[in-house]
Amino acid sequence: MTILSFFTRASRAFHGYPLSSKLLLLSSLSLSGGGVVAYSESQADVSKTSDQTNEKDRKKKRVVVLGTGWAGISFLKDLDISAYDVQVVSPRNYFAFTPLLPSVTCGTVEARSIVEPVRNMMKKRNGEVRFWEAECMKIDAANKKLLCRYTVKNNSVGNDEFSLDYDYLVIAVGAQVNTFNTPGVLENSHFLKEVEDAQKIRRSVINCFEKAVLPGLSEEERRINLHFVIVGGGPTGVEFAAELHDFVKEDLVNLYPTVKDLVKITKFCRDGINVQTGCRVISLSDKEITMKLKSTGEICSLPRGLVVWSTGVETRPVVKDFMDQIGQANRRVLATDEWLKVKGCEDVYALGDCATINQRKIMEDIAAIFKAADKDNSGFLTIKEFEDVIDDILVMYPQVKHYLRTKQLRAVTDLLKDSRGNHRDEVDIEGFKLALSHVDTQVKNLPAPAQVAAQQGEYLSKCFNRMNRCEYNPEGPRHFKGSGRHQFRPFQYKHFGQFAPLGGEQAAAELPGDWVSMGRSTQWLWYSVYASKQVSWRTRVLVVSDWTRRFIFGRDSSRI
Amino acid sequence: MTILSFFTRASRAFHGYPLSSKLLLLSSLSLSGGGVVAYSESQADVSKTSDQTNEKDRKKKRVVVLGTGWAGISFLKDLDISAYDVQVVSPRNYFAFTPLLPSVTCGTVEARSIVEPVRNMMKKRNGEVRFWEAECMKIDAANKKLLCRYTVKNNSVGNDEFSLDYDYLVIAVGAQVNTFNTPGVLENSHFLKEVEDAQKIRRSVINCFEKAVLPGLSEEERRINLHFVIVGGGPTGVEFAAELHDFVKEDLVNLYPTVKDLVKITKFCRDGINVQTGCRVISLSDKEITMKLKSTGEICSLPRGLVVWSTGVETRPVVKDFMDQIGQANRRVLATDEWLKVKGCEDVYALGDCATINQRKIMEDIAAIFKAADKDNSGFLTIKEFEDVIDDILVMYPQVKHYLRTKQLRAVTDLLKDSRGNHRDEVDIEGFKLALSHVDTQVKNLPAPAQVAAQQGEYLSKCFNRMNRCEYNPEGPRHFKGSGRHQFRPFQYKHFGQFAPLGGEQAAAELPGDWVSMGRSTQWLWYSVYASKQVSWRTRVLVVSDWTRRFIFGRDSSRI
Repeated sequence: MTILSFFTRASRAFHGYPLSSKLLLLSSLSLSGGGVVAYSESQADVSKTSDQTNEKDRKKKRVVVLGTGWAGISFLKDLDISAYDVQVVSPRNYFAFTPLLPSVTCGTVEARSIVEPVRNMMKKRNGEVRFWEAECMKIDAANKKLLCRYTVKNNSVGNDEFSLDYDYLVIAVGAQVNTFNTPGVLENSHFLKEVEDAQKIRRSVINCFEKAVLPGLSEEERRINLHFVIVGGGPTGVEFAAELHDFVKEDLVNLYPTVKDLVKITKFCRDGINVQTGCRVISLSDKEITMKLKSTGEICSLPRGLVVWSTGVETRPVVKDFMDQIGQANRRVLATDEWLKVKGCEDVYALGDCATINQRKIMEDIAAIFKAADKDNSGFLTIKEFEDVIDDILVMYPQVKHYLRTKQLRAVTDLLKDSRGNHRDEVDIEGFKLALSHVDTQVKNLPAPAQVAAQQGEYLSKCFNRMNRCEYNPEGPRHFKGSGRHQFRPFQYKHFGQFAPLGGEQAAAELPGDWVSMGRSTQWLWYSVYASKQVSWRTRVLVVSDWTRRFIFGRDSSRI
Repeated sequence: MTILSFFTRASRAFHGYPLSSKLLLLSSLSLSGGGVVAYSESQADVSKTSDQTNEKDRKKKRVVVLGTGWAGISFLKDLDISAYDVQVVSPRNYFAFTPLLPSVTCGTVEARSIVEPVRNMMKKRNGEVRFWEAECMKIDAANKKLLCRYTVKNNSVGNDEFSLDYDYLVIAVGAQVNTFNTPGVLENSHFLKEVEDAQKIRRSVINCFEKAVLPGLSEEERRINLHFVIVGGGPTGVEFAAELHDFVKEDLVNLYPTVKDLVKITKFCRDGINVQTGCRVISLSDKEITMKLKSTGEICSLPRGLVVWSTGVETRPVVKDFMDQIGQANRRVLATDEWLKVKGCEDVYALGDCATINQRKIMEDIAAIFKAADKDNSGFLTIKEFEDVIDDILVMYPQVKHYLRTKQLRAVTDLLKDSRGNHRDEVDIEGFKLALSHVDTQVKNLPAPAQVAAQQGEYLSKCFNRMNRCEYNPEGPRHFKGSGRHQFRPFQYKHFGQFAPLGGEQAAAELPGDWVSMGRSTQWLWYSVYASKQVSWRTRVLVVSDWTRRFIFGRDSSRI
């Protein structure tokens, strides 16, 4: 009975008490202090109290969120749901902690340990969020309508399609794998984007080994079945290769001793976004991978076993169609402004992998900035006048800060120095243009999709929570072209660093301030950061226990 | 570093030390003392030392085992693999603890927690067992050859088919689901026989709920999607219904509050083996289930959501084909003798679900028994003469023991009493026949497939381990029809009881001696017995931690 009563108490503690008690109860389980946590429950609901009373009585605005990935969930976590009528549409009824997907492919972590049901997460909030497991097929921007469809094939009854009206739409549908129209890729390779993909890869890896040991195969055939090929230069591919290497060395060599020396892992790159390489995969058949050497143009084929295609992403069809409607047909990715508002469309926001912020160029606005700063209309900008607008410039044009750092300038006013490095008291418009002419080269694409998406979600929810308050008391920088101030400060990304496990209990970490760490201790740092970043206490406990289990018992090689 | 060194030590303890240390180290984790354990590692290798030295030098006999279920694995666990050249063929490279399959359907226990890779289990033995992940397509009994095929569809290279020669064949392939040729069953229902089936059911249950809450459905449509139908009267169906009921009441009502009152679980029975019911399912369409009332012959249809078909099993095609070859074409199930040897075929054994023991009838042998017992050929059997053969009779004809228990007779000699209950000193052949005439009514089919299969596997491995020794020193009962003794004692099943979880932390237990227990404590008894019966320490730890996790966090409702 003591066991029973312990469980009953433990269970009650988890189900019944408010959040703060949980944190107290379990804080000893978390490996890290949680300082880097972008996602822990302790951070939720910071800016929730605002506007609540004002809103309550009038009709709530309808917010529809598309997607339950990093961006969508992070938006929902912090949103004041008492102020809005919130609906969520996603074909997956769970959030997946994607940085651990490569670990799922080899069973270091179980698939179920890195997912958290959306309904579970919403249940804990004080208010109602309606969730629909469906895919948005069409955004009708003109009528503020969505067409959605339940896409699971089963014997259910009732219409699979339904439409939703929105006042505000938040697009956070992510992106899809880009095959670059390479022939045979869809049919003959694995992707590593969804939890199901990782599970399939796991089964297939085991199958490759089981096939390779069968009687009656030549050694060459065994080698081919154990030739694992990864196409793509991104972190996902590197991490999968590392995981696979560990799985083979730590577990499979003991279970399939006869073929342990025949395993080969090859990583091909393919030119896509930000990848420069020596060869390009041009087609994939059921038995071979064919590529072209860039230097010589030579074409060669290699027999292969399992292929994982991880080369980059492209816009989903529903977003592409939406872009056509709003005059963004020529763009590759949906563009938003600095406040994550979709350009060319009212009341629609886009964040995460499905959109990019179109960072405004300072040179395009240079005349307006000069005019706004030159208060006395003298045609010259004094240091004093420049200092008055510096803060607003830095917020609106983050590239200025990058430029200063690159040039090792200490103050923004250093920009106004003349060519010999002497201070100037004032500059005219031409001098001002010259001073800032190279700043826009520092406009950067954002790295680390998961971190960006999470921060954008959190940022946007805070904007939503203060929508009314900021309408009358705008918080943003001044309008250089018009009058007054912007309603909100623009989104700014803060980089917390990146991890890459390298296999064999080794990991590389790139931390803020260009600090790079490698080795065994980094692996444990990686474990603790990932554990602390997990989306719920449940997944946190599960992931840590998965790691412990793997350490003690090794990975499971059952083909399920 | 303390965490790291703890893990390192723990890991070394598990990987490096011999079996006895593991038992010491972890015994506090097991909830039960392990007294009922048919399967724990502590029992392995009892009869292993025999014959080892004699065998070593001459050519080893080839033993091929088909199947890695309860029967096959239990045979392999105890077999002296140094004495035989052992190969295992199975389409699943793992053993699954099937009594917990219903728990997997609702996430009370994870699929991976109830499976153990065959190669892992074999790795721990001192010797080599070769495992092939393939299906046996054809048994060629005349040439002692098997045709096997790798059945996974992937892009692997090399021939999928291969053949194996055997000296001894152990058939332990189990049985397949019997649809009784009911139209629509294959297309429109779930089975619950394999781990994959349980995983599919879990996903489908969640999908039913997700579909049922979508906008635009009528209440009637929601009801239909949440109408769960179980066809079949066996324990699997009961347990699935109980699990589903718990999942709905404990977890889903909180996550899908709008439809919680629309859920309905219906359990239909279908006449098959040992099931007597009021109606018979005659067809299944994608939307409806159609049945016939036995009493009135009336036919009616019901709309349904998910259907689980769990009505019984039938012989697999490869076994059916084998039966045709050896003159068992007219039988429904493969027949073996009491020593698990297949009738009509040399050196082939069959055990578990794919075979039944053809229990010999005492009345068929009655003349031979009388003749063998009547040593002085007097034509009369004295009590003394009867007592001399009693032990052999009890071993060869277990129905005698059942008969004595049913009739509440204390000694076998009580059988010889006359009609008024008086002892007789001797009986003639007619009197002897009369005394035993009702005994054969007590021939019983064996219950609890998993327990029977496990005990048969263990029994057969012990026979194999003593094959040589018992050739010269037979251990079995005397041949009544010939001279001498049988090589081995026949297989005898010992019933350890059965459990059935009833939902809501309740369970029913049927234990030896007709002791029946129900209630909450039985649930814990059930947990502890199942935990102790798990096939490896890994699965034992995982299952217990799954139960703990479910108790604290509830079941996961993510659709993966």
